[in-house]
Amino acid sequence: MSLIPKSHPRAKSLFIREKLVHGFDKGLVAKEGLLAQGRGEAFDYLLGEKTGKNAKNAIKVAAAQLLLAKMPVISVNGNVAALCPKEIVKLSKQTKAKLEVNLFYTNEKRKKAIVSTLKKNGASEILGINPRDSAKLSGIDSARRIVDKNGIFSADVVVVPLEDGDRTMALRNAGKLVITFDLNPLSRTSQTASITIVDNVTRAIHVLIDETKKLSRKNKKELKNIVKNFDNKKNLSENIIQIKDNLTRRAKIA
Amino acid sequence: MSLIPKSHPRAKSLFIREKLVHGFDKGLVAKEGLLAQGRGEAFDYLLGEKTGKNAKNAIKVAAAQLLLAKMPVISVNGNVAALCPKEIVKLSKQTKAKLEVNLFYTNEKRKKAIVSTLKKNGASEILGINPRDSAKLSGIDSARRIVDKNGIFSADVVVVPLEDGDRTMALRNAGKLVITFDLNPLSRTSQTASITIVDNVTRAIHVLIDETKKLSRKNKKELKNIVKNFDNKKNLSENIIQIKDNLTRRAKIA
Repeated sequence: MSLIPKSHPRAKSLFIREKLVHGFDKGLVAKEGLLAQGRGEAFDYLLGEKTGKNAKNAIKVAAAQLLLAKMPVISVNGNVAALCPKEIVKLSKQTKAKLEVNLFYTNEKRKKAIVSTLKKNGASEILGINPRDSAKLSGIDSARRIVDKNGIFSADVVVVPLEDGDRTMALRNAGKLVITFDLNPLSRTSQTASITIVDNVTRAIHVLIDETKKLSRKNKKELKNIVKNFDNKKNLSENIIQIKDNLTRRAKIA
Repeated sequence: MSLIPKSHPRAKSLFIREKLVHGFDKGLVAKEGLLAQGRGEAFDYLLGEKTGKNAKNAIKVAAAQLLLAKMPVISVNGNVAALCPKEIVKLSKQTKAKLEVNLFYTNEKRKKAIVSTLKKNGASEILGINPRDSAKLSGIDSARRIVDKNGIFSADVVVVPLEDGDRTMALRNAGKLVITFDLNPLSRTSQTASITIVDNVTRAIHVLIDETKKLSRKNKKELKNIVKNFDNKKNLSENIIQIKDNLTRRAKIA
């Protein structure tokens, strides 16, 4: 039973916390993942807790890029598995993207819990679990350089929701096109990725699924046109302006 | 051994996370407390991770108010006990403020761990642990209304670092003067408290201890003058401006 009083004005946010805590209890989420989620909560709060036009724009470009990819891979960590496992599997099926479990705080037990959750939610093939298939990214600290040679290592487009800046940079240096979800438009991940969706992954993933469905009817030339005009840095700047505007508005209400 | 590579550009922030995680492992911090800390981290990042002039101003007023109090009480929760137990005990001794353990997510085992930590750090009397001394605040949900009749219930000035908005409001409605530490200048706690120190408690507590020492030489009239000119809402607005300015600056660097 939830200890959170329904009368609490931030009940909604506290219930999402409970979801993560539940994921933690199931062995999916690292303790550090709870903290990371808290950081996200704060930025979501500042963004107005809704999917704005800048996020929608980035999502459309990400959808086109995923459909154009030769070998897309979606990287899954504990927080993603706790927050939206069903949607991640759905996205992978719709875009023919492979799923790879890849953790910042590596831990075999947690990896297994994530694999099991993904399978329960309909995933068939999951990469990143067979040590024989491991390959190394260069330019990144030893513990976190391991990827799957049949997955991220060979991918042209990698989706890394809620990723660390170091790894995003290593993926970019390895020549990958990186799509990320990150609520902090100033983070290194946001600034380094090719396409940054500044939004809560639990909201944005639905929009991304819809968009890939819609754009799957377009031809390559049309998709390329969508991607070509996108400027990630500019989009990030507009997200920063959105936060500033929200601060001004909220400061007036307060 | 820490898994965090020293080369990581956010190593400092990750080490603080480890401190909280350590507090969690010792049974001091609730899972929800890890998330709450993450939220704080994000606001600290936006504030520039330093004690600004607005925070210094609020700290000075808080110090004067504590010295003027007839019966000050410091409320301690798990995160505070994990982050700065020694400093909290020092502050209580210097201002003759009582210590009361008071949790948002109530839990007897955690309460005991907090009491033990405070004792190890030099606390002699700790309130909030004897059910016979419990009293009820009105206007707040049942699970969180319990306070100590010899502590918060009878206090004129209450220090509540990292507090929930509901409880802050209940304390204000009960006629208490409330001093809080909160990194989010827009939070209900910040907006409801009498004096809000918008700063990381691990930095601000040192400044507050120094300030109470310095101001202890002043007479009542001088202390009253310091308190009288303080406008909490105005100070909060200036903190919001500080965040906006940092966003502008960081957006340019990014």
